[in-house]
Amino acid sequence: MRYLTAGESHGPQLTIIIEGLPSQLPLSKEKLDYELHRRQLGHGRGRRMQIETDQAQMLSGVRFGKTTGAPVTLVIENKDWTHWQKIMHPQAEPEEAGKRRISRPRPGHADLNGAIKYNHHDMRDVLERSSARETASRVAVGAVAKQILALCGIHIGGHVLRIGEVEAERVELTLDELVQRSEQSTVRCVDPNAEQPMKDLIDRAKKEGDSLGGVVEVIVEGVPIGLGSFVHWDRKLDARIAQAIVSINAFKGVEFGIGFEAAKRPGSEVHDEIIWSEEEGFGRATNRLGGFEGGMTTGQPLIVRGVMKPIPTLYKPLMSVDIDTKEPFAASIERSDSCAVPAASVVAENVVAWEVAQALLEKFPADTIDELVEQVNAYRERTKRF
Amino acid sequence: MRYLTAGESHGPQLTIIIEGLPSQLPLSKEKLDYELHRRQLGHGRGRRMQIETDQAQMLSGVRFGKTTGAPVTLVIENKDWTHWQKIMHPQAEPEEAGKRRISRPRPGHADLNGAIKYNHHDMRDVLERSSARETASRVAVGAVAKQILALCGIHIGGHVLRIGEVEAERVELTLDELVQRSEQSTVRCVDPNAEQPMKDLIDRAKKEGDSLGGVVEVIVEGVPIGLGSFVHWDRKLDARIAQAIVSINAFKGVEFGIGFEAAKRPGSEVHDEIIWSEEEGFGRATNRLGGFEGGMTTGQPLIVRGVMKPIPTLYKPLMSVDIDTKEPFAASIERSDSCAVPAASVVAENVVAWEVAQALLEKFPADTIDELVEQVNAYRERTKRF
Amino acid sequence: MRYLTAGESHGPQLTIIIEGLPSQLPLSKEKLDYELHRRQLGHGRGRRMQIETDQAQMLSGVRFGKTTGAPVTLVIENKDWTHWQKIMHPQAEPEEAGKRRISRPRPGHADLNGAIKYNHHDMRDVLERSSARETASRVAVGAVAKQILALCGIHIGGHVLRIGEVEAERVELTLDELVQRSEQSTVRCVDPNAEQPMKDLIDRAKKEGDSLGGVVEVIVEGVPIGLGSFVHWDRKLDARIAQAIVSINAFKGVEFGIGFEAAKRPGSEVHDEIIWSEEEGFGRATNRLGGFEGGMTTGQPLIVRGVMKPIPTLYKPLMSVDIDTKEPFAASIERSDSCAVPAASVVAENVVAWEVAQALLEKFPADTIDELVEQVNAYRERTKRF
Amino acid sequence: MRYLTAGESHGPQLTIIIEGLPSQLPLSKEKLDYELHRRQLGHGRGRRMQIETDQAQMLSGVRFGKTTGAPVTLVIENKDWTHWQKIMHPQAEPEEAGKRRISRPRPGHADLNGAIKYNHHDMRDVLERSSARETASRVAVGAVAKQILALCGIHIGGHVLRIGEVEAERVELTLDELVQRSEQSTVRCVDPNAEQPMKDLIDRAKKEGDSLGGVVEVIVEGVPIGLGSFVHWDRKLDARIAQAIVSINAFKGVEFGIGFEAAKRPGSEVHDEIIWSEEEGFGRATNRLGGFEGGMTTGQPLIVRGVMKPIPTLYKPLMSVDIDTKEPFAASIERSDSCAVPAASVVAENVVAWEVAQALLEKFPADTIDELVEQVNAYRERTKRF
Repeated sequence: MRYLTAGESHGPQLTIIIEGLPSQLPLSKEKLDYELHRRQLGHGRGRRMQIETDQAQMLSGVRFGKTTGAPVTLVIENKDWTHWQKIMHPQAEPEEAGKRRISRPRPGHADLNGAIKYNHHDMRDVLERSSARETASRVAVGAVAKQILALCGIHIGGHVLRIGEVEAERVELTLDELVQRSEQSTVRCVDPNAEQPMKDLIDRAKKEGDSLGGVVEVIVEGVPIGLGSFVHWDRKLDARIAQAIVSINAFKGVEFGIGFEAAKRPGSEVHDEIIWSEEEGFGRATNRLGGFEGGMTTGQPLIVRGVMKPIPTLYKPLMSVDIDTKEPFAASIERSDSCAVPAASVVAENVVAWEVAQALLEKFPADTIDELVEQVNAYRERTKRF
Repeated sequence: MRYLTAGESHGPQLTIIIEGLPSQLPLSKEKLDYELHRRQLGHGRGRRMQIETDQAQMLSGVRFGKTTGAPVTLVIENKDWTHWQKIMHPQAEPEEAGKRRISRPRPGHADLNGAIKYNHHDMRDVLERSSARETASRVAVGAVAKQILALCGIHIGGHVLRIGEVEAERVELTLDELVQRSEQSTVRCVDPNAEQPMKDLIDRAKKEGDSLGGVVEVIVEGVPIGLGSFVHWDRKLDARIAQAIVSINAFKGVEFGIGFEAAKRPGSEVHDEIIWSEEEGFGRATNRLGGFEGGMTTGQPLIVRGVMKPIPTLYKPLMSVDIDTKEPFAASIERSDSCAVPAASVVAENVVAWEVAQALLEKFPADTIDELVEQVNAYRERTKRF
Repeated sequence: MRYLTAGESHGPQLTIIIEGLPSQLPLSKEKLDYELHRRQLGHGRGRRMQIETDQAQMLSGVRFGKTTGAPVTLVIENKDWTHWQKIMHPQAEPEEAGKRRISRPRPGHADLNGAIKYNHHDMRDVLERSSARETASRVAVGAVAKQILALCGIHIGGHVLRIGEVEAERVELTLDELVQRSEQSTVRCVDPNAEQPMKDLIDRAKKEGDSLGGVVEVIVEGVPIGLGSFVHWDRKLDARIAQAIVSINAFKGVEFGIGFEAAKRPGSEVHDEIIWSEEEGFGRATNRLGGFEGGMTTGQPLIVRGVMKPIPTLYKPLMSVDIDTKEPFAASIERSDSCAVPAASVVAENVVAWEVAQALLEKFPADTIDELVEQVNAYRERTKRF
Repeated sequence: MRYLTAGESHGPQLTIIIEGLPSQLPLSKEKLDYELHRRQLGHGRGRRMQIETDQAQMLSGVRFGKTTGAPVTLVIENKDWTHWQKIMHPQAEPEEAGKRRISRPRPGHADLNGAIKYNHHDMRDVLERSSARETASRVAVGAVAKQILALCGIHIGGHVLRIGEVEAERVELTLDELVQRSEQSTVRCVDPNAEQPMKDLIDRAKKEGDSLGGVVEVIVEGVPIGLGSFVHWDRKLDARIAQAIVSINAFKGVEFGIGFEAAKRPGSEVHDEIIWSEEEGFGRATNRLGGFEGGMTTGQPLIVRGVMKPIPTLYKPLMSVDIDTKEPFAASIERSDSCAVPAASVVAENVVAWEVAQALLEKFPADTIDELVEQVNAYRERTKRF
């Protein structure tokens, strides 16, 4: 499987082509739209999230609700495109460019580096694509992957562990409970004691014109043993997920299982003892390694955390320099979200979903979804009897 | 550029093929061997590090000390191969297998998952390849990359920030000083106050049959603006480096710049203000983002940290289960390092070196090293005048 | 550069995403539409070519007529989509499927193999994507590539050398003349003595309910020396072009320079002697090898020929077997073109254009078109002085 | 699966790494050496073929004669390396270079283009890698692929159809018979009436200092239906095989089934009618399309032909130009084969074997060879009942 995404933040649409999906996969528009909707929620989102209700259109590769094996095209329209045509249309007249030309790079964004790299003197040519708007495409792709995974008994949940100074306590929950509770929370936090403080912090940041980052966690349950491989470094699945997480806009780090904490503990308190039972076959007594050993899945839940930096666009401005005049200025405000961590947690779930689905299809190449499901089930039985 | 590595821990040799190198690159065997040597140092290493002195032979793609553009073959011999032939030779008689057959998976290793995935009943068939011995290959590859980077004015250093409970304090140093001081420390730590405590901790762990992990940091200076790209998620250079770091054996996380700390601070204390000067062109007042914005290099030093879990093979054993008898047992000891963090810091440097060199060759024409250097220099001039 | 195409023959649209284009490339919709138009011409085309006038919309990656470096989305609408919605809409009700369900595979098409592979019992799920309609997407991609090549002084032409039994004689022409004359011919044949016989043959085939294949030739002039590489088999440019040509629907072979004729002649009459002049540097006295030695370009024009089999859908039907009843039947008629060779010659030009542009950007990686042009020009000067 | 090859014609060795093989595959050194040996036979080969008897050593990824899933290293030593060390050793002193420096490019070789591309002034830096010696590596890779295919009931044969002016007549043979007869013929020709004329022609060419090309054919039997795919152009298997064939040194064209002949015949005489039987399921009445429809296998034998140009190094010299003096000269003789077509037929078999094995592993799960075989068999049963 492979995919490409395209589209600007204020262009007519986001476009995605996914190639290599198995045929006969029921692809539900409702589920696609549901994931897109989840990405738009969250305490602290700005005005744009209200005016847009993202929906995915399927324009190829699907017939009567099922994939055919041909490439699937997804389109997410940008609702306010009509207002932007004059300055964003591919064939608009350049004179229009001047009006909203951006010569002032925002710190923390791709603006300046992108302008230098691609030799742009209107930084809109950078920011329209570097915008986190693109994560809608990746959520759509993940929403397709989730539908594959679900049929193979693999389920994904995500939640927010930290916003700014407020850290949630660990709560013992099943994945189902965790999903339910995080869905009910506008900050996607399952610790009832942290939820309100998080909201308060966001409100305060908003009032002060500041922004907040945080930490999100993704859990994947039902993963068969042995996805990914140790035989060559670029086939390690945890490493691929690391790339996927860090590639999300504003993410600055990733960790698995106990993660950075593993540096502090002695070896005897880090690894997971191996157990065995007649019914389940091999298992682990704990899951401190987050479901990975040797770059392969262990059959334990995958535990992935990512850190998102605060949104760089602030009411409380940072100093920057105009690329025309070389004069310093206080950086402009493009958007008003003060905290996008809850949404980022949805994005994180979905990029992980894709990587796991990809690894599944690399281990069980499958032209039809039935072959895939059958193979995964047969393999699960075999692994239990190993 | 691309490469493949091959070879087992106790096989005859490690073999590496690197394809796509520029021609006319002076490739110094001394520099390759120096990097391999650095990987073998470190307080707390076991016996094997002494008996092996890794050396890289060049067997293709190089003539009169310079690359020709053809694929480069590197070979690192395993010094104790002669003692292992009977049980490791590709064509040895299977009856020999029984003697050292491994039926007892070690927690924290690839043993069990690998055996299930590839249907091995002698787990030596897994551990020989999943062994950290493979990192010697990646160091050799990085040592080639470093020689490209050096000619382009890009330099790399690494050091250890934490071993177990002991954390080094930040010391203000130039990259040169940092490299010098970390080379002089057997724990690659540049904080004189942390160095001895780290060694003591390693000695104590060794005595107690326990092991220690830690945190390493890699710094890359002289990187041009705009390596990597924001235009498609899989072209973001920080994300690719994340994959490279997490793919190192035993690494469980990675972060850039202030990393996970970014979750705690308000936006106004995370981003780097943009400055400009006649001589240097655009720059940044700080480097909290670790040299990346929008997945592209900013021209600031790259700051990458990775966390290594403690080596899972312990004198103080963990419980596991025999795959034949299904009986529990206390996990066996294969090797005696109690801390490999200093060596891992060398590995981390080298995998980062490869990713940066790769990104360089994706941005600049380079059938010959001279074209590459010329283009990088010309671009540097252009970016200063942007 | 990379691209994905999607879309069915009777779906709403064809969609293409091209990733990795240099920025600042003027991308003319007129030139895209012109190439799409050329593909629709040709003596012997059926009704559909008249009702459709393909046009390419640009929906991302282009602003004020120039690329930004972001992925470019191209969309080609299917004009008769409105009539097909009931049976082709991704979310149509399955009961509609029965009405035009296809249970009768056509010999020479992907129908049967595709149905078995993807487990389809309505072969429309295969033929909608396997249809030569897809070549419109590849022409659009090639039309983008041509705009890159033109700025680098590289020009492409194509013509028809054979239709059925009628073979054109070689006519000595410049590339400009060849392009002009083939554009004026409805069979894209530049030999005035062969043109009318070709048309007559097509008319006769049409009358008899039969179809015709042929041979097309693509010529590329102005190619710098050394695109592609001999250092690894998968970097040879002629081999990549071979893949591109054979991947065009109905193509069964490809050859370069004198091609299969090279088997018959002695070595002394096959290779091209090397010459040199002060002004031009190194060159060749002849071009029997079609511009390639060692998988690299020689600086001589590229000469590529491909063979297209006759369209398999015939009024004069072939026997086949119904997949439901297993009863034999005379294969159905889906479309009425009796000869698509002239159009295929346009497709061939465009797939070659992409491969050459790709090779150009692999040799001269370039974030902006200006860097590319500058590098190619500088290299040309250098090669002349070698 | 993927692989890299490395090594020069007169360097110490050829090295190959194959990554992604299933585990538990019995890998026979005898079969590897047998294929290498076949490549060295043939009427008209020069002296070097006698002094070398290529053998493949396995240096990783294999234990007790079976693959482990880890990368496999193959090494083929160059027997005369000892005589070449002074001018080929990676670290030899440059002054040695002068002695056998090559400043005279041979027409028809990569010499001149390669020198210009990589800026070499000793063309030995090009020809050592561009030499057909590299095909030994590809044969070794194919010999591994053949062992996978054989276990899946897929068998490959090859023969020579033309040498110079002498064309063999088609003889009706089973694949077994064809293999047997071509093995017995020193020109790999199964037509007894053409064999002696081919040898005579070679002898005459040798005497006259000329060289001969030819046409080879590869046949693959037992291929399941639906390898490759029509859904995206770069997944068509015939097109990938086209790349593989044209990438063989000196190959100038490729065709499938009736190939270029398809241009001449009406559609009614080109396509293969579909038949069905209770025992075999769907089949074809003829195999004019050479086993491919829509880029997928039809279940019929694959028929692939490639054309090899005459070896460019001739006693009867071609004119060229010295790169130092720019003076014309009569091109030098490096080697004395007058016809390598029989050997090329072995190479062609093996590159096709790799592509088919690759396609097989893209369609079926295969971490272990047993899973692959089981799945292929189950799929064969399913396709019969479609």
